[in-house]
Order: sequence, then structure tokens, then C-alpha cells
Amino acid sequence: MKTFIIGHKCPDTDSIMSALVMANLEKNFCNTNEIIPCRLGNLNKETEYILNYFNIEAPKLIDSVAGADEVILVDHNSFLESAPDISDAKISKVVDHHRIANIETSEPLFYMSEPVGCTCTILYELYRMNNVTIDKTYAGLMLSAIISDSLLFKSPTCTPKDVKAAEELAKIADIDINTYGLEMLKAGTDLSSFTANELINIDCKEFNANGAKFQISQVNTVDIDSVLKSKSEIEMVINSLISEKGLDLFMFVITDILNCNSKAIVLGNKSSVVEKVYNTTIDDNVAFLPGVVSRKKQIVPKITDNI
Amino acid sequence: MKTFIIGHKCPDTDSIMSALVMANLEKNFCNTNEIIPCRLGNLNKETEYILNYFNIEAPKLIDSVAGADEVILVDHNSFLESAPDISDAKISKVVDHHRIANIETSEPLFYMSEPVGCTCTILYELYRMNNVTIDKTYAGLMLSAIISDSLLFKSPTCTPKDVKAAEELAKIADIDINTYGLEMLKAGTDLSSFTANELINIDCKEFNANGAKFQISQVNTVDIDSVLKSKSEIEMVINSLISEKGLDLFMFVITDILNCNSKAIVLGNKSSVVEKVYNTTIDDNVAFLPGVVSRKKQIVPKITDNI
Repeated sequence: MKTFIIGHKCPDTDSIMSALVMANLEKNFCNTNEIIPCRLGNLNKETEYILNYFNIEAPKLIDSVAGADEVILVDHNSFLESAPDISDAKISKVVDHHRIANIETSEPLFYMSEPVGCTCTILYELYRMNNVTIDKTYAGLMLSAIISDSLLFKSPTCTPKDVKAAEELAKIADIDINTYGLEMLKAGTDLSSFTANELINIDCKEFNANGAKFQISQVNTVDIDSVLKSKSEIEMVINSLISEKGLDLFMFVITDILNCNSKAIVLGNKSSVVEKVYNTTIDDNVAFLPGVVSRKKQIVPKITDNI
Repeated sequence: MKTFIIGHKCPDTDSIMSALVMANLEKNFCNTNEIIPCRLGNLNKETEYILNYFNIEAPKLIDSVAGADEVILVDHNSFLESAPDISDAKISKVVDHHRIANIETSEPLFYMSEPVGCTCTILYELYRMNNVTIDKTYAGLMLSAIISDSLLFKSPTCTPKDVKAAEELAKIADIDINTYGLEMLKAGTDLSSFTANELINIDCKEFNANGAKFQISQVNTVDIDSVLKSKSEIEMVINSLISEKGLDLFMFVITDILNCNSKAIVLGNKSSVVEKVYNTTIDDNVAFLPGVVSRKKQIVPKITDNI
């Protein structure tokens, strides 16, 4: 029997690490199944840095779950963020930390979700609950995901559980959180080699609410202005996506991880929603969003409720 | 802050016990909140027997969650089986053992689901995980729910986890499972005082699949024929429900809990689906379903896939 474990489309560090960490956990429960950690897209630079650091192979790149007898979803539940043929698959487990939307299964399943900052924090609990030993490498992978999702504990999505898990994992991995964390986050902000199209697809999610369809893409940087140098190319790509997919809104959020602010390129017929919910003005398609670093906590709920 | 804890409409024993047991657990986490176990319908006779046996007050009868700041769902997740205004509520937690369908939340939440026979089996694990002591009474309530959902471990929904939890809970409650269990199940099969309309609503669930709308109602008995004495009245009520709600199919499943068989009164324009999936014939609106006792495992998936 073949089990695919997948994180969301445009995988971020948590989606990649969760697939690897969950696969390692599942192997403790059943050694006759073939457990295959997978990914639905390219690795970002931060994730590449981590996999190199721990000398771990990336999950298998797939564009369909047709070959799997069972699928385990990590770091997402929405079918909109999953494999295109996910609705035909048997989903046996979900481990996630997002709101529930656009998921339907035909059978009961294992589903574990908590309102914490990172899927790997929940996976850490699952290892503990099942008395499965965490080795140095897997502790490092989980720690990296928590640092990534919480921006070194500075994101408002970060909870005391994430901090506690990270501290315990850092001990096992024998890693200094701050030194390693800053190196890792900085590695992820090297956007110099990306085309405008690639930039938008590093971490892009699609949403539906009140009959409107919108996408919010996010990149992390230590220098917002250097990203905005490609503004006109980025706008061209976004505008063609808007007409191709019939989107009402596209936000390309550029987040300064050192100062914890963002600027967003905002396009689409519902752009005024962004002005309304952040009480700001969009100047030449760009909105400044002071203090905003979390798409999940500070952007998606506001846009969803007001679009 | 007010938290309502609710099981599904037409509450069965698991929905009522889970609301009480979850409320008792939540009080360990927060003693400033007002935690109110609730129910969306009348108690069945089995549940009444259990509450009398342990001298516990029934959850509060409600028809709306408008007064709650937060809502915890137990033993269901589908909004179709929940309070009519559930989509306006903030759902903070879900503990369930059904497939996922028709649920959407605006924020991340605690969600714990396992493919086991009873919600109280999962709640038992949550007590253990959180090192919360289970007293004799609450052990008895959880045990009763497991006996009810598993028909004394004879239902195909019953898993080794349910059996193990029941055995451990029986020790705490100091109860002989078989003696108590049979008494309890028999108390639930006294259907003599019910009108046809009440019979149908003891445990009735609504489903949507492939554009079709159907309801499956179930009663337990030790004598199927005595229930079928009211067949013509039951058919009248079902037929008016079908035209009122535009249903394509209605199954009223009468389950013999001693011999583990069922007969179903089947009405609606999609009745032939039942003949097809069970390879049987419907005779005078009645289909015999040998070995079928579990709506969740042996009826819903088959009808959903073939309607």
C-alpha cells in the first residue's frame, strides 16, 4: 500500500518539513506500507538551506495523487491548496493548523488541528503522545519549521506552545536558536535570482469568500525596496493572472522580517477592500501595512470578512 | 465568556454524553468561562436511563447558539447536523469521529478526530493526554456512550481503541460491562410510547451528495416487527417530509440489536439505489439488510457513492 504525504501548493518550509517529519512518524506505526513524503511545487531558498544544513533529501515532486492508495495532508486541509485530484483520493489523516474550509471526506479519518503557529509544533506533540524518539536531525527539521512560520517567534501567529516546542527541539538538535534562525531566515530572503512570475509563486494561496475569488502571495525580505524594483514586471504577471483566473483581488505582500512590516502590491476590482480594512490608501498600486507579517492572522480573515 | 458545547441534532447517547464529558474537561482548563453543555433535541430513552442511573442533569435544550461567544462541537462537524445558526458562531473546538463535510470556520481551531466508534473514546484520550482525573460518574458516562455507539462492541464501527477505553472506564466506574450494557441498550429499545413522527426523529440525519438530498433515520429494537406495526403511519410522515423538504430518498432503518440485522422502510424517487447497493429487492417499501447495524459505516458511504 502506498501513502503520499503532502503539504500545500507553493510549499513553504513548514509544508516540506511536515511531510518529512510526518513520514518519519508514520514509519513507526507501520513498516509494510510505502510512505512517501511529497511536495506540490519547488523548494524556496530557505527550505533549500535547511535541507542542505541537515543533509536531507527533498520530498518527491508530484502533480497528482493518482498513484496513492491513501493520502495524508499536512499544513493544509483546503482542497484549493492541495493536489488537483485530491477529491478523488482517500484521505486517511490530516495534521494542520489552519481554519477548516473546502474539505470533504467520504469516510471518518484522523484529524488533528490546533490553533498554533506551526504544523511541526503539533507533530512534535504527536511524537510525544506516541512515545516516538526524535533524533537530532528530525528535531532540527521541526525547529526550522517553527522558526520559519513564527519568524523567530515575532509573528502574531506564534503561541507559547510553539516557543516551548522550539526550545525543547533546539536542545535535542543541539542548535542555538537565534544564530541558526537568523541565518536560515536570511537565506530565504535572497530573491535575486527569481523572475517576477517565480516571485509571485514562491508562496501563493487562493481563496473564495462571498462569491469573490482572490489570491494572496507573500515573500519575506530584509529589503522591501529591492523587491519593488521589479514592480512593473510583477504587476504585469499579476494582471494576466487576474484576467486568466477571473480574480477579484490579488495581493502580493512583501514582508520585512527584521522590522516586521509589509508593503503589498494590490490589484483587482476589489482593491478598495484593502484600503478599507487597513484604513490606508493604495498609492500607485502599493499599500503600506505597518506591523503586518502574518497572512493567516492579519490578512486572510480581514479580507474574507470584508470582500 | 460563554461557551456552548453541542452534539448533533436528534441527539443520541454519544452526543449527550460527549457534551457533558467535554464540559467537565474544559472546566479543568479555564474556570472563568461559563461552560454550558447543551443539546439540540429531546433525550432518547437509552440516554434518559443513563442520566437517571448516574443521577446527572441533562444538557440544556437549545435551538440556537446566538447566546454563545464560542461553540464547541462534539460528535459531529457538519453544519447540516448542527444548530441552525452555527455558521454565524465562532467554533473554537471540534471533537468528532465522523467524516468531514459541510464545515467551514473563519479561524484556526482545535480539531481532534479519529476513525473510532465513539466520540467518548477520543474524549477519554484527551483526559489522559491532559492528565485530568476521571471520576466514577464521568467514567460511567463515557462507558455508556461507547456501549451505545458500538452496540456492546458488536457494531463494525467498533475499534480496538473503543474496547480498550471501555474496559479501562469500566474499572474506574466499577461497572460490569455486559450486565449494565444490556440493561442500558434494552431501555433504549422501548419505543412503545412514540408517535410515528417521534420515531422518525429519534435519530435522523440529513445528507447531500451528487445533487441529491436524503435522510436516514435509525431506531434500535429487540423486535423489528413490533415497530413495523406502525408502518402505514410512518410512511405517511415520511412522504410528507419528502414533499416538504424535496428529498430524493428517505430510509427509516430499524435495527435489531440482538441479532444484528436491520429492515428499512425506503421511500423517494431514488429508492432503487438501496436495491442496487445492497443487491436486494424492496417489498412493499421494506428492504431487509442482513448484518447491517451501522448507519455511518454500512449505509451512508454506500448511498453517498451511488445516489
